[in-house]
Amino acid sequence: MVKLDYNYCMADYIGDRLGICEKELASYENKVKKAHNALMEKAGKELGFYNLPYDRDNVKYIKETLKKYKDKYDTQVVLGIGGSGLGPAALQSSLLNYISNELPKEKRKGMRTYIIDNVDPEWFSDIMEVIDPKNTLFVMISKSGSTAETAADFLACFTKFRDVLGSNLKEHLVVVTDPQKGELRRMANEFGLDSFPIPENVGGRFSVLSSVGLVPGELMGIDIEALLDGAADMDKATRKGDLFSNMAYLSATIEYILYLKGVNISVLMPYSTKLGKWADWYVQLWAESLGKKVDRDGAYVYVGPTPLKGVGATDQHSQVQLFKEGPYDKVITFIRVEKFKNTVNLDGDDKFKNYSSLSYLMGHTMNELINAEEMATEAALAKEGKPSKTLILPEINEYYIGQMIFFFEVATAISGELYNINAFDQPGVEEGKNFTYALLGRNGYEEKKKEFETLYNKSSKFIM
Amino acid sequence: MVKLDYNYCMADYIGDRLGICEKELASYENKVKKAHNALMEKAGKELGFYNLPYDRDNVKYIKETLKKYKDKYDTQVVLGIGGSGLGPAALQSSLLNYISNELPKEKRKGMRTYIIDNVDPEWFSDIMEVIDPKNTLFVMISKSGSTAETAADFLACFTKFRDVLGSNLKEHLVVVTDPQKGELRRMANEFGLDSFPIPENVGGRFSVLSSVGLVPGELMGIDIEALLDGAADMDKATRKGDLFSNMAYLSATIEYILYLKGVNISVLMPYSTKLGKWADWYVQLWAESLGKKVDRDGAYVYVGPTPLKGVGATDQHSQVQLFKEGPYDKVITFIRVEKFKNTVNLDGDDKFKNYSSLSYLMGHTMNELINAEEMATEAALAKEGKPSKTLILPEINEYYIGQMIFFFEVATAISGELYNINAFDQPGVEEGKNFTYALLGRNGYEEKKKEFETLYNKSSKFIM
Repeated sequence: MVKLDYNYCMADYIGDRLGICEKELASYENKVKKAHNALMEKAGKELGFYNLPYDRDNVKYIKETLKKYKDKYDTQVVLGIGGSGLGPAALQSSLLNYISNELPKEKRKGMRTYIIDNVDPEWFSDIMEVIDPKNTLFVMISKSGSTAETAADFLACFTKFRDVLGSNLKEHLVVVTDPQKGELRRMANEFGLDSFPIPENVGGRFSVLSSVGLVPGELMGIDIEALLDGAADMDKATRKGDLFSNMAYLSATIEYILYLKGVNISVLMPYSTKLGKWADWYVQLWAESLGKKVDRDGAYVYVGPTPLKGVGATDQHSQVQLFKEGPYDKVITFIRVEKFKNTVNLDGDDKFKNYSSLSYLMGHTMNELINAEEMATEAALAKEGKPSKTLILPEINEYYIGQMIFFFEVATAISGELYNINAFDQPGVEEGKNFTYALLGRNGYEEKKKEFETLYNKSSKFIM
Repeated sequence: MVKLDYNYCMADYIGDRLGICEKELASYENKVKKAHNALMEKAGKELGFYNLPYDRDNVKYIKETLKKYKDKYDTQVVLGIGGSGLGPAALQSSLLNYISNELPKEKRKGMRTYIIDNVDPEWFSDIMEVIDPKNTLFVMISKSGSTAETAADFLACFTKFRDVLGSNLKEHLVVVTDPQKGELRRMANEFGLDSFPIPENVGGRFSVLSSVGLVPGELMGIDIEALLDGAADMDKATRKGDLFSNMAYLSATIEYILYLKGVNISVLMPYSTKLGKWADWYVQLWAESLGKKVDRDGAYVYVGPTPLKGVGATDQHSQVQLFKEGPYDKVITFIRVEKFKNTVNLDGDDKFKNYSSLSYLMGHTMNELINAEEMATEAALAKEGKPSKTLILPEINEYYIGQMIFFFEVATAISGELYNINAFDQPGVEEGKNFTYALLGRNGYEEKKKEFETLYNKSSKFIM
């Protein structure tokens, strides 16, 4: 199992400035029990992500339906933003060769995979330069079926590859969307596209274990069943209402206590480039779930810890200076990989023996070095009284990644209860969408256009 | 020129909660003048980055020296971490095709480029799988000449490719390091390697316009002279001590005023995936420069705003919910690109006309959409009283990237003066290094080993 080491959040280890004493932590047992009961009322109902590890019929349907595409095409282009882009991207970079697209077919596990998660015209054109539409399956992912960026990326692909997609849309496009509602569902029906459901009660940022992650995952060649197995085992391990028996609750409670002490930044720092995209995924999960203006009683609370991505050892040469010497405003969650798939020797050569900056490394492995650095950084921060905890991943594989995903999802869900906010909506993104529609002249947004023009009536004095 | 729009930091636009009034901003004129004078005393002396735009002899030397390698090899592997990795990576992803390594030779501007900036054994092995050492130039970059991760990556490459590198090191390795000091300089001398200087008065995070960025840049085929031209023009534009005539000072002063009001997070959010790595570069620059425990009077101040990366429009589906509805603890700097190199049409097809989620986009371009989204997000945040400013880049090319680099470097340098800290050291990373040496059994670190063991004497009670 994945383990959580939280010694360096405790006052015994890091002192009283931010350290939590045992009694203080234990004082949250009741609150957590109540939060747990509230959560369990919704688990599997409004909160559909609890069901995903067990939906093996969907896995079967995905595998059967995708078989013909896997035989036929070499490349998938995923059109999806937010959870629909981050989940597939994190699976790709952690579970395949990091630059798998550059490998020849026989060395790849599955299709080459490109994830289009933005509407940057230069970047979009860059990617399109390597795409051969005749060999490509487009996978369009949108829960609502009307995400502006995904719609635009679809139109752009269609326009560019009209000669292939114009007459053969059905052969080259599958969709992942709501099982009943939305315009993407309507498109699937009208054009006879293969489609995969995102259960109605699963939100975008909790969707990686649904078709959103599983369809691209199956096409890129990862073991999607092992992913769900890991998630199921973490589900079982985090169903207990007792704070000290539930690692996800404990992790969330520690972060909550620290937030109350003024710690408004929550860093996730895997010591592994391959896990880096999971930090991006975590940023969405944590930011969009917990950043809320209004609590459940309607009060304007403007809460939310800010998640921050780090990658070790790389960021020891970037962010760690600030983490160590800067304000007491952060809690860091390290991820340590116990056993990497490859062992990289640092043997070198006798001719480097008289270079002291090389010789102390010779005979060691890169594996030893990165884990030494992770522990050294923990200790250096603890010495300064800076709190951290460490998630220990036995290996990077589908099973443990599944555990990790579910761990963070449960931690997020229980945090919503502790903050007394709705962790499953995102009302704050509507305003920007509406202004965008207005600027593009969409029907019905004429009033918004006027409001925008009033707001954006900028003074040239404040431009230089 | 690059422009700065700071309307949405002003109280007239975003209200009094965090908005700055004109009089308040003007009240900083004296302080900024003093800071400017202090900075100008050091500019070009201790602060060597001010000289870099004008060091054209080095450009000439780089071009001449690298010519033989450009003719000979297809691939460069950059070994460098911190500024030595971030600078080259940001140049690569913004100024080449985003996945240039996947293009055939005739479509690439220069060598395929892999940047090894970590000691993750799985990731390292992934990259090595595509490297053919016979076709590869290794570029080892370390100012001190003894960076542990870079040393380890070098040893790992040497060990793996011993058959090629063992007898031909001189043919396949060049180094970028201090002109006089350090073990990498000694190695260059002993093994007769081509080498490129990092001036002694240029720190890692201010080094992208030195050989650190220029050597990999020249090999990947970017116009390194235009890069310096842009930087030189921004230097000229930011030499004035008058707050209201100096966009870098103004930007820094606004951030400083907001920090004093409790805004401890500084977001950089380019609306462009291609500029995303510059946000990572900014994170190092800002975090390592301004995150300091001790001020110049020796007082323990524990200061430092936390820089945060965002990428628009992507992060509208991740972080923007928090930016809009969460705490008043952030100032956001957007980057808007006025003119993208490519125009991407969203024409679509008549058969999509009766889908309202597609039809409003049809006839528009992706270019219009991304800029509408950027302006819409600015306005949506401003409406909630959240401060932002926008850096307007006319185009993404070497010249304007050079301007942008220099803008952020000057803003960082003047911030150091405002915070009254040394923005050019990084004492906080030593502790972790020493513990790492201790864990690897390096000679002379026996006492550190004992200290580590005392600190790391963890209770199993706090592991689950």
